[in-house]
Amino acid sequence: MKIALDAMGGDKVPGEIIRGAVEGALTHGVEVVLVGPQALLEPELARYNHTLPGIAIAPASQAVAMDEPPLVALKKGDTSIQVGLELLRDGRVDGFVSAGHSGAVVAAALMVLGKLEGVDRPAIGTVFPLPTGPALLLDVGATPDCKPQNLLQFAYLGRHYLKQAYGIANPRVGLLSNGAEPAKGNSLVRRAHQLLAESDLNFIGNVEGQEVSRGRADVVVTDGFTGNIIMKVGEGVGEMLYDTIKQATGGWLHLQVAAGLLRPALEPFFKRLDYTEYGGGMLLGVKGNVIVAHGRSNAKAIASALGMAKRSAVGEQRGAWAAIPVPPKS
Amino acid sequence: MKIALDAMGGDKVPGEIIRGAVEGALTHGVEVVLVGPQALLEPELARYNHTLPGIAIAPASQAVAMDEPPLVALKKGDTSIQVGLELLRDGRVDGFVSAGHSGAVVAAALMVLGKLEGVDRPAIGTVFPLPTGPALLLDVGATPDCKPQNLLQFAYLGRHYLKQAYGIANPRVGLLSNGAEPAKGNSLVRRAHQLLAESDLNFIGNVEGQEVSRGRADVVVTDGFTGNIIMKVGEGVGEMLYDTIKQATGGWLHLQVAAGLLRPALEPFFKRLDYTEYGGGMLLGVKGNVIVAHGRSNAKAIASALGMAKRSAVGEQRGAWAAIPVPPKS
Repeated sequence: MKIALDAMGGDKVPGEIIRGAVEGALTHGVEVVLVGPQALLEPELARYNHTLPGIAIAPASQAVAMDEPPLVALKKGDTSIQVGLELLRDGRVDGFVSAGHSGAVVAAALMVLGKLEGVDRPAIGTVFPLPTGPALLLDVGATPDCKPQNLLQFAYLGRHYLKQAYGIANPRVGLLSNGAEPAKGNSLVRRAHQLLAESDLNFIGNVEGQEVSRGRADVVVTDGFTGNIIMKVGEGVGEMLYDTIKQATGGWLHLQVAAGLLRPALEPFFKRLDYTEYGGGMLLGVKGNVIVAHGRSNAKAIASALGMAKRSAVGEQRGAWAAIPVPPKS
Repeated sequence: MKIALDAMGGDKVPGEIIRGAVEGALTHGVEVVLVGPQALLEPELARYNHTLPGIAIAPASQAVAMDEPPLVALKKGDTSIQVGLELLRDGRVDGFVSAGHSGAVVAAALMVLGKLEGVDRPAIGTVFPLPTGPALLLDVGATPDCKPQNLLQFAYLGRHYLKQAYGIANPRVGLLSNGAEPAKGNSLVRRAHQLLAESDLNFIGNVEGQEVSRGRADVVVTDGFTGNIIMKVGEGVGEMLYDTIKQATGGWLHLQVAAGLLRPALEPFFKRLDYTEYGGGMLLGVKGNVIVAHGRSNAKAIASALGMAKRSAVGEQRGAWAAIPVPPKS
């Protein structure tokens, strides 16, 4: 299996990205196609074992800057994002991973790969490894302004993904809201609730914020604005805990020992909040397997994202992304 | 100082509410006026020391059920929520606390107390005790559907509150969004950004989810839908950590000892996520000092909410809530 990796995307290019490619190739047994300027990537790659199998380079001359408007970036043509997506479109790789400008990745994917039949807007989904099983939250950032129909489509995309990639046949779908009753929510959510209730999905109703981490639903649907913010709030809370422990144990050996003993116990908790562990999000609703990794991705996060791309690609082969039963547009 | 307390509101009425009243009266030195049916409250109160000073009863015959539509509840007239708010309106108490149906409290407050000049919609604000100082998040639930003008008004309400209740003269105001750049956000947030940028507020721009707990802004403005969800996500993450530690240390003495040693160090962290510590939210934008406590409030949470009402009332006396410099309606 081959995964294309944007070597020019993210805060830590190209060093951490390439290290992540090497780690990912070894850990997940995938071939990685690094996309970027050959002259830059070759010396970086040369630092690693020359006999290392499964890392190739696909040349792309340009990068997309993190503050560049997506439509401006699209006009450059020869960016690592576009070249990587073209490899995917042409069937030369089984997935594409980028830690670059997520807006540019989404815009380029829509242009190069196109949308799935019946999907108006794409969504980025993230799977949290909860104690109760995987929980998929979407959208976490592709579509900040949603219509009710978009949320319904996200639910279908989510159901399909969990089925294909995790073997969950009929996942419970919840709608993120500020109260359990159907009348709760903003106007978007109240209207989406109706559509979901009338669908053939396994819709369990509204899900409140505290119920996400309890695993009440397998698929939690929300708009890309709210989803993005709660992802980052979770990240902030994890950071705050880490800092609290670090500061409190700073000068005290017995507390350091206590923290050391507890570390293995706390690890699953941190893993659930740590994007380097789960690698990023899947871009759902486009014709292809695209992983949007966190901009701050280090080597570990890139390796995880490659693992995620592999899992999605396996699912993609088992099912057929293009045949998601999304209801007709209203 | 006298605070009216809805003795019929919340999941644990009346036992925990009354215990909270006693605790709050002792801890915060406030007089508490319990609002509810005398025949029910007197025997409950009799369990405590009869010489206990500063707890009175104001009779109200009815309660509002948690699933009752606010407008139906309002028609009953003689509910503990309405009677408590009338005591506040008539100047017989300095604040009102309810752990009851928050939608009913907001609706009744709008009717009984009325809105402040220049305020279209109220907001519930919550103060998080961060290591960097208090941070006020609003709205966390009063107005799920907001217009840009509402968010601007929330910012003024928040500035005024932090100044009056915490002495922060010119708080930094941030707008919760899914990216730092002014162009990020949903359409509501992009338009609110413009209004905030043109205002005389100390506006520092968009604030991302992970920056809330870092204390980047003193006042974080968001709509009541998003605010409510992120509050509850934080609560869920706190629970998840607690469960992780509990399960992991369950059978292992050395881990229990380690957790015990770390407990004081972790306490400030949990306090930040634990609503029983900060007591609830202030209802801002109405003519009066109203605290909306969590429906699950136990005695400790009620006592904290009474402390909060005291703090707000002190601020109210120093300033003048009715004179908040909210810009004219557009």
